[in-house]
Amino acid sequence: MGAPGDIEDLIGLMARLPGLGPRSARRAVLMLLKKRGPLMAPLAQAMAHVALSARDCSVCGNIGTEDTCPICTDPRRQTGEICVVEDVADLWAMERAGAFRGRYHVLGGTLSALDGLGPDELRIPLLVRRVQEEQTREVILALNATVDGQTTAHYIADALAATGVQVSSLAQGVPIGGELDYLDDGTIGAALRARRRV
Amino acid sequence: MGAPGDIEDLIGLMARLPGLGPRSARRAVLMLLKKRGPLMAPLAQAMAHVALSARDCSVCGNIGTEDTCPICTDPRRQTGEICVVEDVADLWAMERAGAFRGRYHVLGGTLSALDGLGPDELRIPLLVRRVQEEQTREVILALNATVDGQTTAHYIADALAATGVQVSSLAQGVPIGGELDYLDDGTIGAALRARRRV
Repeated sequence: MGAPGDIEDLIGLMARLPGLGPRSARRAVLMLLKKRGPLMAPLAQAMAHVALSARDCSVCGNIGTEDTCPICTDPRRQTGEICVVEDVADLWAMERAGAFRGRYHVLGGTLSALDGLGPDELRIPLLVRRVQEEQTREVILALNATVDGQTTAHYIADALAATGVQVSSLAQGVPIGGELDYLDDGTIGAALRARRRV
Repeated sequence: MGAPGDIEDLIGLMARLPGLGPRSARRAVLMLLKKRGPLMAPLAQAMAHVALSARDCSVCGNIGTEDTCPICTDPRRQTGEICVVEDVADLWAMERAGAFRGRYHVLGGTLSALDGLGPDELRIPLLVRRVQEEQTREVILALNATVDGQTTAHYIADALAATGVQVSSLAQGVPIGGELDYLDDGTIGAALRARRRV
């Protein structure tokens, strides 16, 4: 309260964004109001455009502005490798790293009886079909190193066993720039077990 | 990088909001993308509407959606009292408190030689004219208790001296719910000097 009605409504909607509360949403809207021309109008326009045009890629589940996302339609991407990620955010993180040249499959979460997320909700049957149809050589499981992520990884490996595709997962170990003193015991143990000859 | 172009543009604009950085802007946009219907479209619409309709009140400097703000046009607000605030955020805070029934005057900052803010930029001549034209009985200076705020308060009191209007400022003391043990020395000293008989 305090601001005129329309502006209060906008503050209320902004406050629902992650990382913003009622107070910081108010501050953000005030800043937008002071920069109506250079920032607020373009932001509103960009948001309306994306809200209208964004859709889930029918092949991999990535979010883009076309029916099939730019990665799935890019002829330079290798077709023989599918990288399985939990979420679109993870796909974007992989793309920022720029280390993978194949295609993706977004699950949309991890198996969770509590949240009612079974294999069908996670697009796992779709993944099995893609592997068969696209003559995939390798499926790389890039799931989070959490209990849920690893449970889901095991389930997918089982589901893909009949197709004969090679299934691998991201290596676990010391992160680049990581200092042993600050690493948790689990990571140090995993890095020791997966040690390599130099 | 990582997301398609239009979405990256939106993330870039969101990252310019106070309280959001590149990382949290990405998280906010992903959340919006997942709630395109219930949240993203209404937010874009509300923002576009406010960006188009918001304007500074020609009388007091408050931001509203009309040429004159709802407070200045409200016939139930007393005309004899003007509360001077630094910023629209302070006006909104005063309104949330609901303790003031007069009208406002928004300076838009404090006097600052460094930032090139002089009396004209702060709408101080406009305040002097309002005081004369509106037969104001009292000007209440609700400026922040900072060095800049208090310097500006003194300047305004001097500028208004010739009009004969009564000039007052917010009381300084222990905040409601405040514990002495956690208060700074300046506040305790001010509260002691302004002590009242009970």
